[in-house]
Amino acid sequence: MNLEKLIRDIPDFPKPGIIFKDITPLLANSEALVYCADQLAALSPDRIKIDKVISIEARGFILGSMIAERLAAGFIPVRKKGKLPSEVISKSYGLEYGEDILEIHKDAIKPGDNILIHDDVLATGGTANAVCQLVTELGGNIVQCNFIMELGFLNGKEKLNCNVASLLSY
Amino acid sequence: MNLEKLIRDIPDFPKPGIIFKDITPLLANSEALVYCADQLAALSPDRIKIDKVISIEARGFILGSMIAERLAAGFIPVRKKGKLPSEVISKSYGLEYGEDILEIHKDAIKPGDNILIHDDVLATGGTANAVCQLVTELGGNIVQCNFIMELGFLNGKEKLNCNVASLLSY
Repeated sequence: MNLEKLIRDIPDFPKPGIIFKDITPLLANSEALVYCADQLAALSPDRIKIDKVISIEARGFILGSMIAERLAAGFIPVRKKGKLPSEVISKSYGLEYGEDILEIHKDAIKPGDNILIHDDVLATGGTANAVCQLVTELGGNIVQCNFIMELGFLNGKEKLNCNVASLLSY
Repeated sequence: MNLEKLIRDIPDFPKPGIIFKDITPLLANSEALVYCADQLAALSPDRIKIDKVISIEARGFILGSMIAERLAAGFIPVRKKGKLPSEVISKSYGLEYGEDILEIHKDAIKPGDNILIHDDVLATGGTANAVCQLVTELGGNIVQCNFIMELGFLNGKEKLNCNVASLLSY
C-alpha cells in the first residue's frame, strides 16, 4: 500500500515557508490506518519483548495504542506540562518554533522495562530526545524510536542515541 | 475484567476539590487496553456500519484509533484551535474550568457518513456537544457518543441529543 499518496502537503503551516506533512487523509482511510499500525509494529526488533509503548501527545497517541496492541505491550502517554495527574518527571526541550516541557508519570516505567517510543513525525529530534531522556531517567531500556515519517533534511536522527526506524523518509 | 480497579482517583487535580479519574494504569496494562477497546467497539449498535470514528484531543485519540480498527472505520481527529493544518470549521464551548475552541477538517466527513464519537470521559458534556455540532454541520449522522466513563453527577448526558454509551459510570 502506498502510504505516501495519503499524506498531503500543506504549504505555510504552521508558519510561512514550512510545508506541513498532513497525515489526516491516511488516518481517515480505514485500510491505511490498519496497514500503517501493522508496518510500524513490524519495525520493532523481532527478538525483544516490548513491555511499554510510549507515545507523545497528541498525534503520537493515535498509532501508539495500535502498536502497543500488536506488541502486547502497555501504553504510556508522554504529555505537555500539567496534563498528567499523578507524580511526574519533566524535561524541557527546544522546538522548531520555541520551547516546551514534556512529562511522564514516575511510576509509568519499571527499571529494565523494554521501551518502544513512537511519534508520527521525526523532525529536529528535540521532542523524541526529551522523551528518551525521561525514559532513561526512569531506568527504561529504549529498544527503538519509530515514526511514520522522518524529515531527513532536519537531521533529527543524529540527536537520538538509539535505534531509529521510520516508514517514510522525506 | 474489572476495569474500575485500574482507574485511580487523584484528589485535587486539576484544582482543589476535584477528584480526577486517572486512566493511565488501565492504558499501561496491555490486556486491559485491548479489553477496553473491544468493549467500546461492542457498544456500537450492531446493524449500522460506522464510516468514521471521531475522537477528541488528546486522550480520546488513544482508544479512538483502536475502536476505528475494530469497526473497520476511518479515524478523524477533532483538535484544539490552530492544530489542524487544512481548512476547518470551529466551535467554542464552555469547559468546567473556562472556554476553549475545537476544530475539525472540513473534508473529514462526507454528508450521510455514519459517525461514532469517542472520548475517554463524559463530564459536563460541553466538549462532546461541541463535537456533535461540528459533525452535524458537516452533514454527518451521529450513531453514538461513547466513553470509557461517565461522571453521572455532572449530567452530561442531558446535553447530548444522541445515543450515549459508557463502560463505567460514577
